[in-house]
Amino acid sequence: MKLATLKSGGRDGTLVVVNRELSRCQMVPAIARTLQAALDDWPHCQPQLAEVYTALNNGAARHALPFNEEQCHSPLPRAYQWADGSAYINHVELVRKARGAELPASFWSDPLIYQGGSDSFVGPRDPIYALSEDGGIDLEAEIAVITGDLPMGASALQCAGAIRLLMLVNDVSLRHLIPGELAKGFGFFQSKPASAFSPLAVTPDELGDAWRDCKLHLPLQVQLNRSLFGRPNAGIDMTFDFSRLLAHAARSRELEAGSIIGSGTVSNKQGSLHGSSIAHGGVGYCCLAELRMYETIDSGAPRTGFLKFGDSVRIEMLDADGHSIFGAIEQTVTPYPTSPA
Amino acid sequence: MKLATLKSGGRDGTLVVVNRELSRCQMVPAIARTLQAALDDWPHCQPQLAEVYTALNNGAARHALPFNEEQCHSPLPRAYQWADGSAYINHVELVRKARGAELPASFWSDPLIYQGGSDSFVGPRDPIYALSEDGGIDLEAEIAVITGDLPMGASALQCAGAIRLLMLVNDVSLRHLIPGELAKGFGFFQSKPASAFSPLAVTPDELGDAWRDCKLHLPLQVQLNRSLFGRPNAGIDMTFDFSRLLAHAARSRELEAGSIIGSGTVSNKQGSLHGSSIAHGGVGYCCLAELRMYETIDSGAPRTGFLKFGDSVRIEMLDADGHSIFGAIEQTVTPYPTSPA
Repeated sequence: MKLATLKSGGRDGTLVVVNRELSRCQMVPAIARTLQAALDDWPHCQPQLAEVYTALNNGAARHALPFNEEQCHSPLPRAYQWADGSAYINHVELVRKARGAELPASFWSDPLIYQGGSDSFVGPRDPIYALSEDGGIDLEAEIAVITGDLPMGASALQCAGAIRLLMLVNDVSLRHLIPGELAKGFGFFQSKPASAFSPLAVTPDELGDAWRDCKLHLPLQVQLNRSLFGRPNAGIDMTFDFSRLLAHAARSRELEAGSIIGSGTVSNKQGSLHGSSIAHGGVGYCCLAELRMYETIDSGAPRTGFLKFGDSVRIEMLDADGHSIFGAIEQTVTPYPTSPA
Repeated sequence: MKLATLKSGGRDGTLVVVNRELSRCQMVPAIARTLQAALDDWPHCQPQLAEVYTALNNGAARHALPFNEEQCHSPLPRAYQWADGSAYINHVELVRKARGAELPASFWSDPLIYQGGSDSFVGPRDPIYALSEDGGIDLEAEIAVITGDLPMGASALQCAGAIRLLMLVNDVSLRHLIPGELAKGFGFFQSKPASAFSPLAVTPDELGDAWRDCKLHLPLQVQLNRSLFGRPNAGIDMTFDFSRLLAHAARSRELEAGSIIGSGTVSNKQGSLHGSSIAHGGVGYCCLAELRMYETIDSGAPRTGFLKFGDSVRIEMLDADGHSIFGAIEQTVTPYPTSPA
């Protein structure tokens, strides 16, 4: 089943069921007006939404409308929780190397998760707004899951069963603010502006064999300014699968339905810590920080700058037949319009 | 104006307006069913809610019911953002000393804020649930504000104008997990279980002269096992007022209506870094960690343990006439009921 949220209809938008080909959709006000409402009452809503999905795919939905990714907000325009893991330890090791920090051995056994801001996500086609270019604006292409309710201390098995939906994420980061913020000891805050999620959130069964061991075994396609920048496989080198990330997050408190847990930047080791860029025949990267580290090792200094106003990012995942599963995140870095107040 | 949320009515409860004496309340489904709904449309809802408040105080509300703090959830049972500052630098300095960490000079000029979990707050009379006593369970009594919408880069002045409501908080912390988690670099996660907020959220105008310079100038009363443990004045030694905390939080992203920003543990310096306990004639503390540090300095080792199952915490604030402003947070540490799954 594929779900999306149209921007119209208020802060939480309007839930629609979308057909597999992403061409038609249907509003479902009699089932749930918003995605959060559906998640709040999932056992009741899910079968009804699935019925609409079947009808849409069979061309039998009576109130179907054309579906347009441009009209979408993030599936949850705002959420009660966005916690982002760092499950691809290769990324963590490489980025830490770039800022001269060592990787503690425990990072291979104890998941790293930070609490992100979830009050004001931007839509998949909205700008990456920034007050200036000076922050070192970077993308981070990731996978994320939306959970059902989980009790405190939930086992990995319980967590696996509570994964309701999957999405793609662009977890924008301000690289130059990170060292100072992490040195303060309380984690990221200003260095993590609003994230954007893919137009579609899809149920795990929709992914067939590509969803196994609580990992999504498909390449994550990243374009920068319309050129291929990365296509690492999200199922490779994921040290902690989603069930372990969720169990970590639920260790000392309950997780409420609609919590979003991210994988962290997808990163394939490709035979060495540093991987290889697309230009050098590798699968490339899901953030600029990794390429810059690769360049530093290759030639003594990074050659690629961070994102500037006007730069564009596209994040997508295709199925085995080349069809877009989640629709595309497509964002352009844009100066934030300063308010008159 | 005073607002509360009854537990009945679903995950977000039911908004009620409460009279000044906390004796009567009225549901307001025609204005807003939940507090978040009121905050989403505050300019429209606020005057209507204020009218009900006036009627309640005048005994003229036609559908008033008895108000019972026991029936309350936290004013926002779940929120889109809970970000907690550390505005009382004395607390930061003392707690860091307790774990052997130095206080960087920048902490006096650059606010420290962490992103907290906001998906599953507990009610003001709910247990402090823990899987075991081993985490070093501590209370942290604080003040928090709920904001309206704020643009990215909002000035402190804009932020001051966006403070909609104030509450008290118990930001429960698992002290023994903090050093390990902070060492990982991503901030708190498992070390911060669910917070509880006071039954009442009140508008700033309700506080009269006690609300000035974006600080709340009244003693915050903390009882442990029914004995006075602290009564520091929340207006004293608050290095960063709420407008500065909000401006820090809004620096690189918008804040959406309903965001909760906390002050951090209230702490008065009382003439020296270590302050003084109630037993020694001081104003005491708002967390056990500070008392333990005081004891360590006083006699070489902490004498007071962290919270155990059965221990109770009460947090309240009285106005100049001795009336409870926010109602009381009253929680007992309780083993989390393990689920059958």
